Amino acid sequence: MIFVRPNIEALSPYVPGEQPSANDQLKLNTNESPYSPPDSVIQALHAVSGELLRRYPPATSENFRSIAARTHGVKPEQIIATHGGDELLRLAFTVFCTPGNGSGTTSRGAAVMTPSYSLYDVLAAIQDTPLHRIELTEAFEIPAGAESRLAHSGCGLALVVNPHAPSGRRTPVQRLAALADVCPGVLLVDEAYVDFADEDALSLVTGPNAKKNVLLLRSLSKGYALAGIRFGYGIADPAIIQHLDKARDSYNLNVVSQRLAEAALEARETYRSLWTQVRKDREDLRLGLQQLGFVVFPSETNFLLATHPGGVAKTKSLFAHLKAQQIYVRYFPVPGLEDKLRITVGTAVQHQRLLAAVTRHLDVG
Amino acid sequence: MIFVRPNIEALSPYVPGEQPSANDQLKLNTNESPYSPPDSVIQALHAVSGELLRRYPPATSENFRSIAARTHGVKPEQIIATHGGDELLRLAFTVFCTPGNGSGTTSRGAAVMTPSYSLYDVLAAIQDTPLHRIELTEAFEIPAGAESRLAHSGCGLALVVNPHAPSGRRTPVQRLAALADVCPGVLLVDEAYVDFADEDALSLVTGPNAKKNVLLLRSLSKGYALAGIRFGYGIADPAIIQHLDKARDSYNLNVVSQRLAEAALEARETYRSLWTQVRKDREDLRLGLQQLGFVVFPSETNFLLATHPGGVAKTKSLFAHLKAQQIYVRYFPVPGLEDKLRITVGTAVQHQRLLAAVTRHLDVG
Repeated sequence: MIFVRPNIEALSPYVPGEQPSANDQLKLNTNESPYSPPDSVIQALHAVSGELLRRYPPATSENFRSIAARTHGVKPEQIIATHGGDELLRLAFTVFCTPGNGSGTTSRGAAVMTPSYSLYDVLAAIQDTPLHRIELTEAFEIPAGAESRLAHSGCGLALVVNPHAPSGRRTPVQRLAALADVCPGVLLVDEAYVDFADEDALSLVTGPNAKKNVLLLRSLSKGYALAGIRFGYGIADPAIIQHLDKARDSYNLNVVSQRLAEAALEARETYRSLWTQVRKDREDLRLGLQQLGFVVFPSETNFLLATHPGGVAKTKSLFAHLKAQQIYVRYFPVPGLEDKLRITVGTAVQHQRLLAAVTRHLDVG
Repeated sequence: MIFVRPNIEALSPYVPGEQPSANDQLKLNTNESPYSPPDSVIQALHAVSGELLRRYPPATSENFRSIAARTHGVKPEQIIATHGGDELLRLAFTVFCTPGNGSGTTSRGAAVMTPSYSLYDVLAAIQDTPLHRIELTEAFEIPAGAESRLAHSGCGLALVVNPHAPSGRRTPVQRLAALADVCPGVLLVDEAYVDFADEDALSLVTGPNAKKNVLLLRSLSKGYALAGIRFGYGIADPAIIQHLDKARDSYNLNVVSQRLAEAALEARETYRSLWTQVRKDREDLRLGLQQLGFVVFPSETNFLLATHPGGVAKTKSLFAHLKAQQIYVRYFPVPGLEDKLRITVGTAVQHQRLLAAVTRHLDVG
């Protein structure tokens, strides 16, 4: 028998959305972009030489960081590049949360708004740190008492995904500022979906209202159509970045990812038209689902959360019906979400196929 | 002021070898391959499409794992693919070592043979776990009393790099088996350099003498000329792999790395001739250094550890002299290594340039 830390022994790992490989599939379950990245990004891939592959990559992604800094009007020392947003989340738990869940202390754990990205729970379990849950309202809004609860949580890290997943709802930046002001630890604003939103939280990390304790998470997986390369980054006060950097694996991003991520940020204007298209398609899909009787939450992301008019049983049966036809959407079997499906915004043609399949199921059921 | 865990606040991060970018440089400091990967690997890179980039990669690197299992004659569930060997090391610390260095306990920390890969110390500090040091002999051999000290260490994880870095010396597999038998935790055998050695430790994880507590680390950085993509893997009993897997970031390897790593293992026969060449060149370089008066340790890696005949001061001055001529080797300013340089095996032409520069310095000094 080998010894394994009890928190790891007991851990239920994060379950990613299915990655089916059938040809005829319609994959609207993991919020990938329906469009491929622009040609300039593919060209950057093809330009990688054997000479680059045989050598260690730049250890701190300097070039990417300077491009990102220029893009957002911040300093390079305010940027940390990470292997997807997920690595940034892990680093934040490692640096700001104290291990020792069993000790009975409620301090220096993590505070999360629930429901939310289930990886937060897994990372807290791996770090063996207490988790303070602040329940969102039924409409997935941050409740009135959140500031007070956060202030008394003793947490080292608070996580707010904004726009919110899985609802798509955005909290205004003024509210985030109020949360940051009372937060006893670092407030991580997970902006994985921000490219599809009307407002970002950059004003919390630069300019006259910048906070010393706010860390923004950005991802190239959704808005930049690069889920395959795993690239994210953090934006914060240099002191936060410096500490996260210490806990980072020494060469955390390979040379190919760095080159592609650099090309992607440089192609930001091309991506903008893609984001505009997704917003337009999101509105069309929302109308289509509403016409079928679904209640759809207002979304500023590349997905919609739709409540089935027929309740939990019908939702489950629709989910299975869609899957049988190779149409993949996301179902979360947790309280508050059991009568809902999360559907990634696709193309108009993909929406037609989805809505037709949903209609057939409603007609039958 | 933000709160940062005291162990992170106090941490001296790992310092990677320099990555200079001058044109005329001779880079023999980070044990990269002097040869680029074979064409089939470059072709795998160019075959990656925008469609693959926009989608999440396979979460558990199934395809790579089955190729690696076939390559080594083990089961796929005995393989975990990781973002370089470094991720595997971090996962092992996370899973097998208990945090809480300050508590005075000496149990469930990590045991290391010193000197060794300095990242082990950094990972122990990040995990905030006790570190038991077992000093190697002056000839960098595991000392006679190591089994007894390991047995009483109470460690959750013991790390042996074999062949050893920075000396290049290999410990016979029988000795590793003896260490595994008394080790109270998992014995991680870091085989980052095994492709250049006369023997590997596969018999400790498969076949009649397999141990339940041995974890082999493999890397594509050195032997496969792919330091740029950050790809490593572990081989062990399925129970060990399963636990490591729980602590892994959900998509820990990007799609490009996976494709290239698969192509690399498939091209193993091509790589073999490269490994043979490195061994031959290693012998030539060893002779060249010995002729100049250096004492060179027997090496089964792609580097040599050479003791300067003139002592510490001359070693430092030679290191600076080489650097001024854009010749980069590695110097470790730690006890036992201060009069030595670690030199990566390069090509015959590169060795000529190096030896000429060394000769000039010896003549002057």
